[in-house]
Amino acid sequence: MESLGVLLLHPLDTYLEQELDRRCRLLRLWEVPHDRRGEFLRAHASSIRAVVIGGGSGFGGNPALIDDLPRLEIIACYAVGYDCVDLTRCRERGVRVTNTPDVLTDDVADLAVGLAIAALRRIPHADSYVRAGLWKANDGHYGLTTRFSGKRVGIIGLGRIGLSIAKRVEGFGCPVCYYQRTRQDAYPNYIYLPTVLQLAANSDVLVVACSLNEQSRGIVSREVIEALGPTGVLVNVGRGAHVDEPELVAALADGRLGGAGLDVFQAEPDVPQALMALDNVVLAPHMGSGTHETRMAMADLVLANLEAHALNMPLLTPVV
Amino acid sequence: MESLGVLLLHPLDTYLEQELDRRCRLLRLWEVPHDRRGEFLRAHASSIRAVVIGGGSGFGGNPALIDDLPRLEIIACYAVGYDCVDLTRCRERGVRVTNTPDVLTDDVADLAVGLAIAALRRIPHADSYVRAGLWKANDGHYGLTTRFSGKRVGIIGLGRIGLSIAKRVEGFGCPVCYYQRTRQDAYPNYIYLPTVLQLAANSDVLVVACSLNEQSRGIVSREVIEALGPTGVLVNVGRGAHVDEPELVAALADGRLGGAGLDVFQAEPDVPQALMALDNVVLAPHMGSGTHETRMAMADLVLANLEAHALNMPLLTPVV
Repeated sequence: MESLGVLLLHPLDTYLEQELDRRCRLLRLWEVPHDRRGEFLRAHASSIRAVVIGGGSGFGGNPALIDDLPRLEIIACYAVGYDCVDLTRCRERGVRVTNTPDVLTDDVADLAVGLAIAALRRIPHADSYVRAGLWKANDGHYGLTTRFSGKRVGIIGLGRIGLSIAKRVEGFGCPVCYYQRTRQDAYPNYIYLPTVLQLAANSDVLVVACSLNEQSRGIVSREVIEALGPTGVLVNVGRGAHVDEPELVAALADGRLGGAGLDVFQAEPDVPQALMALDNVVLAPHMGSGTHETRMAMADLVLANLEAHALNMPLLTPVV
Repeated sequence: MESLGVLLLHPLDTYLEQELDRRCRLLRLWEVPHDRRGEFLRAHASSIRAVVIGGGSGFGGNPALIDDLPRLEIIACYAVGYDCVDLTRCRERGVRVTNTPDVLTDDVADLAVGLAIAALRRIPHADSYVRAGLWKANDGHYGLTTRFSGKRVGIIGLGRIGLSIAKRVEGFGCPVCYYQRTRQDAYPNYIYLPTVLQLAANSDVLVVACSLNEQSRGIVSREVIEALGPTGVLVNVGRGAHVDEPELVAALADGRLGGAGLDVFQAEPDVPQALMALDNVVLAPHMGSGTHETRMAMADLVLANLEAHALNMPLLTPVV
């Protein structure tokens, strides 16, 4: 695929960038000053046949970019979520879209469980407490936290990631409930609840693990947060837009919600200032898939999809 | 047991203290100035028939206390570990000893898994990074971490806590090896290794989950740390004295050991200053059993053992 012109919007991963540079004709948009990007895209419009984008940022603020690229054939998402891509527009234009499912499932599920334990057992708070010398200063005293084992875990979206979370928390003796549009008869041990409000009301820990689309945008509403309640914990490894973020912040600050473990935010990498001071939350920089092992596998899958496309072979993980 | 004189050495738990005060004749040693404690103990020596102590601190610096109490009949440990009690001396004196097993198993196992994920995925580091505004300042960039799923977990001590850790990490697809003096034939899925050195050499994550005794003191030696190596992670939910702490600190600082999640230390609540600055460790203030749920169950078990003793009934969880 030496002749394939590939536009990379953001620096995603060193290995991916090196391999794209070696195997294709790579253009790095972020190296072009903002005021010269229009000119840059016009100059290269005839050669750009592929775009590689990440999940959180995606087309960040420029969804119309696709219309500036008349020769575009494929958008390869270096992410499982492709909510930043206008699939309808891609279908109209005949632009293919791929993502990187499966290879990141374990890492995201690990982080979801890690955030749940970290939030309930206050692991980052404890670490700061010891480092600040407060354990010694307070004669060995440290406050009590909340048990994780046996807590009712509610999962929004029993897809690949949701199922992996369910499998993990079973080892902790946690009963699992889930909500999605249709019941999954293959998993009779997991209780289906037909509304997200019922799920929240019957959960101690509520985990967002579904994809972002028009049905799931804002699914964790004020009502859902209130149903989870002052002893409940929200874990979000989906997208920031799944949650009514101002309501979440207010509920955490007021104690109407017990705690949260958040890997995603509405305007990443901006995080609401009010969250920074709360000690009942654990904050993470959208690192669900951010391990050496998984990012290499994701990069290889992006490259394999581009190779397949260049050779006119079936795509490995097509979305469109 | 209204007439039972009970000496409490440290403030352990508000509920336990209230109940002891309500049900027995409670004496609080820590409220007496250090230089008047000898006099205080002599004055009350004829009425003190029970001592209640915690796990980490225990008889903290005063193991001879038992000899100052001629009427002592029972030591009730508010902990599963009773390494701070001189069992030989208790047997000679006819002093009974109880602990609080089982009720804290789930919490300690949860924390062990939580510390392993937190260390590999750098959860406290990530939380500090976001709170310090570095995620935004660095344009959404955050370094990669290491996967937990599928890593080889080695457990020192396949007792109640070790088994609970094994059950949890199985849900993450982690193969389990273990070391203890004798093979546990009841668990064929877990691989027995006959030396702790072999266990460390075959583990990515090494978890200390055994009791502290003369055989296990210093079991995580320099050689074991070297065998675990620069990509290995040590998790200690046992006792600080299980580990050669100066060697551990040096290996972490030099990168000869990859990381650590530590809930216990040699001279609690003192933590080696060199650990405070390392970002490849997660530190916790001996909080393995520190949840509201478990501490209440532990307190109830201490009280039930004292009640049984006062009524001359069989102890619920006797050690001696």
